[in-house]
Amino acid sequence: MAISNNAGIDPSLTPFFAPQGIAVIGASRHPDKLGYGLARNLIQSNFQGVIHFVNPRGGSLMGRPMYTSIVEVPDPVDLAVLLVPAQAVPRILIDCGERGLRAAIIASGGFRETGAEGAALEDECLEIASRYQMRLLGPNCIGVLDTHLPLDATFLPPPGPLPGDVAFISHSGAICAAVIDWARGQGFGLSRLVSLGNQADVNETDVLAPVAADPFTRVLTLYLEGVSNGRRFVAEASQVALKKPIIALKVGRFSSGRRAVASHTGALAGQENAFNAAFRRAGVIRADTSEEMFDWARALAWCPLPAGRAMAVLTNAGGPGVTAADALEVNGLHLCDFSPETRTALQALLPPAASLNNPVDMLASATPEQYAACLQVLLQAPEVHGVLVILPPPPMHTAGAVAKKLIPVIHESAKPVVIALMGERLIQEAVEHFRAARVPEYRFPERAASALAILAERAEFLRRERQHLAPANPAAQAAGAALLRDQPSGWLPAEATLKLLEAYSIPTPRTILAATPQQAFSQAEQLGFPLAMKIASPDIQHKSDIGGVLLDINSPEAAARAFTELMERARVSQPGARLLGVHLQPMLPAGQDVILGAVQDAQFGPLVMFGSGGIEVEGLKDVAFGLAPLTVEEAQHMLASTWAGRKLGGYRSLPPADGEAVLQALLHLSRLASDFPALHEIEINPLRVLGKGQGVVALDVRARLSKVSLSQP
Amino acid sequence: MAISNNAGIDPSLTPFFAPQGIAVIGASRHPDKLGYGLARNLIQSNFQGVIHFVNPRGGSLMGRPMYTSIVEVPDPVDLAVLLVPAQAVPRILIDCGERGLRAAIIASGGFRETGAEGAALEDECLEIASRYQMRLLGPNCIGVLDTHLPLDATFLPPPGPLPGDVAFISHSGAICAAVIDWARGQGFGLSRLVSLGNQADVNETDVLAPVAADPFTRVLTLYLEGVSNGRRFVAEASQVALKKPIIALKVGRFSSGRRAVASHTGALAGQENAFNAAFRRAGVIRADTSEEMFDWARALAWCPLPAGRAMAVLTNAGGPGVTAADALEVNGLHLCDFSPETRTALQALLPPAASLNNPVDMLASATPEQYAACLQVLLQAPEVHGVLVILPPPPMHTAGAVAKKLIPVIHESAKPVVIALMGERLIQEAVEHFRAARVPEYRFPERAASALAILAERAEFLRRERQHLAPANPAAQAAGAALLRDQPSGWLPAEATLKLLEAYSIPTPRTILAATPQQAFSQAEQLGFPLAMKIASPDIQHKSDIGGVLLDINSPEAAARAFTELMERARVSQPGARLLGVHLQPMLPAGQDVILGAVQDAQFGPLVMFGSGGIEVEGLKDVAFGLAPLTVEEAQHMLASTWAGRKLGGYRSLPPADGEAVLQALLHLSRLASDFPALHEIEINPLRVLGKGQGVVALDVRARLSKVSLSQP
Repeated sequence: MAISNNAGIDPSLTPFFAPQGIAVIGASRHPDKLGYGLARNLIQSNFQGVIHFVNPRGGSLMGRPMYTSIVEVPDPVDLAVLLVPAQAVPRILIDCGERGLRAAIIASGGFRETGAEGAALEDECLEIASRYQMRLLGPNCIGVLDTHLPLDATFLPPPGPLPGDVAFISHSGAICAAVIDWARGQGFGLSRLVSLGNQADVNETDVLAPVAADPFTRVLTLYLEGVSNGRRFVAEASQVALKKPIIALKVGRFSSGRRAVASHTGALAGQENAFNAAFRRAGVIRADTSEEMFDWARALAWCPLPAGRAMAVLTNAGGPGVTAADALEVNGLHLCDFSPETRTALQALLPPAASLNNPVDMLASATPEQYAACLQVLLQAPEVHGVLVILPPPPMHTAGAVAKKLIPVIHESAKPVVIALMGERLIQEAVEHFRAARVPEYRFPERAASALAILAERAEFLRRERQHLAPANPAAQAAGAALLRDQPSGWLPAEATLKLLEAYSIPTPRTILAATPQQAFSQAEQLGFPLAMKIASPDIQHKSDIGGVLLDINSPEAAARAFTELMERARVSQPGARLLGVHLQPMLPAGQDVILGAVQDAQFGPLVMFGSGGIEVEGLKDVAFGLAPLTVEEAQHMLASTWAGRKLGGYRSLPPADGEAVLQALLHLSRLASDFPALHEIEINPLRVLGKGQGVVALDVRARLSKVSLSQP
Repeated sequence: MAISNNAGIDPSLTPFFAPQGIAVIGASRHPDKLGYGLARNLIQSNFQGVIHFVNPRGGSLMGRPMYTSIVEVPDPVDLAVLLVPAQAVPRILIDCGERGLRAAIIASGGFRETGAEGAALEDECLEIASRYQMRLLGPNCIGVLDTHLPLDATFLPPPGPLPGDVAFISHSGAICAAVIDWARGQGFGLSRLVSLGNQADVNETDVLAPVAADPFTRVLTLYLEGVSNGRRFVAEASQVALKKPIIALKVGRFSSGRRAVASHTGALAGQENAFNAAFRRAGVIRADTSEEMFDWARALAWCPLPAGRAMAVLTNAGGPGVTAADALEVNGLHLCDFSPETRTALQALLPPAASLNNPVDMLASATPEQYAACLQVLLQAPEVHGVLVILPPPPMHTAGAVAKKLIPVIHESAKPVVIALMGERLIQEAVEHFRAARVPEYRFPERAASALAILAERAEFLRRERQHLAPANPAAQAAGAALLRDQPSGWLPAEATLKLLEAYSIPTPRTILAATPQQAFSQAEQLGFPLAMKIASPDIQHKSDIGGVLLDINSPEAAARAFTELMERARVSQPGARLLGVHLQPMLPAGQDVILGAVQDAQFGPLVMFGSGGIEVEGLKDVAFGLAPLTVEEAQHMLASTWAGRKLGGYRSLPPADGEAVLQALLHLSRLASDFPALHEIEINPLRVLGKGQGVVALDVRARLSKVSLSQP
């Protein structure tokens, strides 16, 4: 009988992962039909539950009866796999529902992927499923496969994957077939495979927890063309990633449409930045290529995690050692310095001409015993967090002999070891040994170094502080709601925007509106000098672009002149704009200027940006994104990953600025953005950062409400 | 007899590549000795010249006599391969010289790589070689191999590489062994292989032309740990790259020591930027990983070059199509839009549900005939410059059948086609077909896309204008020589630096030195207002860092006060500095500020930098480098590849600036730097760029002379 590993998981999905009885609807006697392949795979997979075949023509297949309808199929049966023409699917789904089934895989194509008619058919299926409280996987998918249960409910040509510890969840069926074949050729196994197809019902997020619950699965790999619901994906993936690593290959980077945005933040917050911020929050590791994904998966499945980023390289040749050293640095790792004890221990094992520095070059004469003994020394050295072993075809020994000596040393250690096993035919025996021993090996030092870096990244993710979300501020939220309640959609008036920031503890400069030159004169006297003056118009957002800002106003007369000048400039450059007058603000002390912004992402909700401000934001692209509300750690990461953030600490003649105040402003802004989904975009550019302990001031800010309702989330 | 392919090449190197007779000195009867392996490889390689064995013990080996000394070996013999203990090498080299040999490969290790004693031995060998006008390859190398001649003068375990069209030149011997084995496993061949070892004599630059002269070699691949002489490498590689592509994997990125530099230019001009500038000048393609190098080499060896960057993707599945589309964009290619004719032609071949957009998705039912016919349509479409074909294990047909249909179509076309052949075991037959037909195939779309991009890059290199080096300016050079003649090493006085720029047609502001507050008062009156004032000291280079610059001085009184203030600041912040007084300059109109610099690179000579200026140069790192003197094309590329250069065209409220004047200044500075190798570094920061047609002004400049003589290059 099938064993359920799905305790605590949505029980409606259990039949997909631990079925008691499966009915293949569309099973076929013709070996060139997919319905034959499916029946064959199911039987050959050694599935321990009951297998039923259904075909309206009846007869028998592989020694089993073919029922003419699902309604005739005897118990137990809790999963149907449909491989029939699309037009026939709705009728059969109804039969399944009547028969009491609550789960079906629709492997058939001919649905949404073919156009409007297919989409209507798919909607009909979904409606039927909902009527019978039935869960659907597909349509247009390869199905599911579990090498340990075992179960192969796909129609792919054999052989299937070897049993292993990497699960693969895919939006593309064609990729599944290629990955199974490729993984088998590379000698590593899969645990579970789920092909999602059109995701009429069950989607990538739904299957994360059930797949991760499989005790044989040590790593989840995802081929994603998008996510169905950004925030739900982040929530689910965050839970799973705490227990098991998730690697995602997210494709479709360049296919996203442009959004209607008016801010720098919106322009820069493309789908990719949103995905990167979401993956970082969830602890999902993003791979750039398929090969990288599975290179990393093997290391994550098989290796212990390193305590840090200090690595050693053990080699029998200088050239590959240099390549490995480069690759480690490129991947953000570093070569550690050896202690005198380590050097002494290595010296005792190696000839005088060997290099006892890192990389350790044992010379071409290195024996299998020397490889093993030196590796042991390195793994026992406290300064070493992990080791990259380089093994080209050794001139005097076989790589296989070296592998046999290395494996016990690797298995004994709690530190990760990856192997650059260079060559092809001369290393086959070593390849077999390492794979059987679950030691990750790669053809080139560069790939081995990249895998080691991912282990360090995973370790850091698990150590990372996750608790301190930007604190909720009910008083600010209430004040914000009051401010926004009566605002129409579109750009918020400057006064309301400034008040909104103040409610969220983001300081703004004292600002007075002058409607006439006379008012400018008298208000300037009142505020004191020097002053900044800015055109006030709900229709002009990039004020400096039209010369709508004048600085260093030093007298009431100058203020009155500036008023006239600014109004004139605005009339000339934007004739239709409504002009409310001119804002007067006291000039602030010099400091560092940065940009803070937030935008509502269609996929992931509010997204916050930090970076180099001014007018060149989109040119410099020195910005970082995070999901709102931010954690303190994320906000710190955004500062650390931009030049704008790093230079807050001071740089040459630039004095240190109040980085802590920036951090707080970023956290507050992130809370503001998440409190009000109707706030489509808000941007502070620049935020003036004063000296240490002297805070920040939002020198200019603009915000836009979308047409959605202002009800609280 | 061996055939010489080396017409026009340094004749002293001919014996390495087309020997008439080879003497293996150290040939051995013991199968576990390298001297046995070498003898065996030479005979088994089917070398058509004469093979002699030498061993002091005499006897015979493989049916041939073993001479006891090279002096006994009869004609013809023009190449000795030494595999004897290091200590014995000098004596044997003398014998070789006496015997009349003019070329020797020293395969033995135990020389410079082992320390001072070995280095002395290596120097002795070089001295002997020079005495006999003998060329040396090695020591500590694997030797040479030519699969077409054929010739295998290595001691590596068999099998050697398959005959092919990729040459491999390597500083690392261990990499050679791994590459041969790996290439054989990957099913592609090598033409020539040269292992350089310690390069006592023959180096990587020497062998470029002889290897490229081989008619079977279509691509040169280099594993470089450095270059022996930067400028000579650039000169030789430039010549070769015009005829055959060169790909280099340059390792040792992180091993270079820090140089003593005081300028931003010097700090940023690390060894890597110098190599990148040199490779770009020479047309050498730089690979980041070994795998990438050979992925690209196969495409360059086998494919015609594309006319542009507009690519089509042909697939039978959506998922890999999206992956390919992403990867093309990441690599700087783009998916072309199809003409109505192309769409109509595809439509006639495909079912209604197929996608006629790019990527063309033929659906999983695609037959071998459909693959071939659609590929033909795409290759005939004028809007398509190249095609990436995706071929996962097709559900209904074999990948091999598809390959057989595709190959004739690919061979007929003058456009490049690369294949993403996804999977492993199910595609083996297709792999064999494609390899035999010299069609590059890759396991993943990402690698195929990267190869296609390299073809486009190569095509652009060949089309690129190479003629217009920054013009020589003898008058400027004479003026510069006069200015620099009597200067001691160290920082140049400001006046001399400004005159040097003026001699090279780089405008500088009118500058007057005031030595007292009274002089500042009177000179300010003379110059007019507003003024900039800067501390004048040979010991203070980053003036703004110590508050040594005051702007917007508006009256003689203010100028006198500013003088006192600046002198005081300088005394406080740099007590020991020699203070000459204060420089007065008229303030310039607003504009864009950029940095221009040049530094003498130890490897490649003068290197020029352009980018975002100010004090944050090293933080922003928005800079580009080129070899001086620059070509016009290189200077344009430096502008185009930086934000500082791109925004010269105007950006939002930033008006367009005089980009042409920047280009000219960059060319002039590059000529200045190459005219005076003694000018260790010179940096204009900022260069103020005024409006279109209004030129540039070097607002601040500093230059340093090294201790080398000022004689003309």
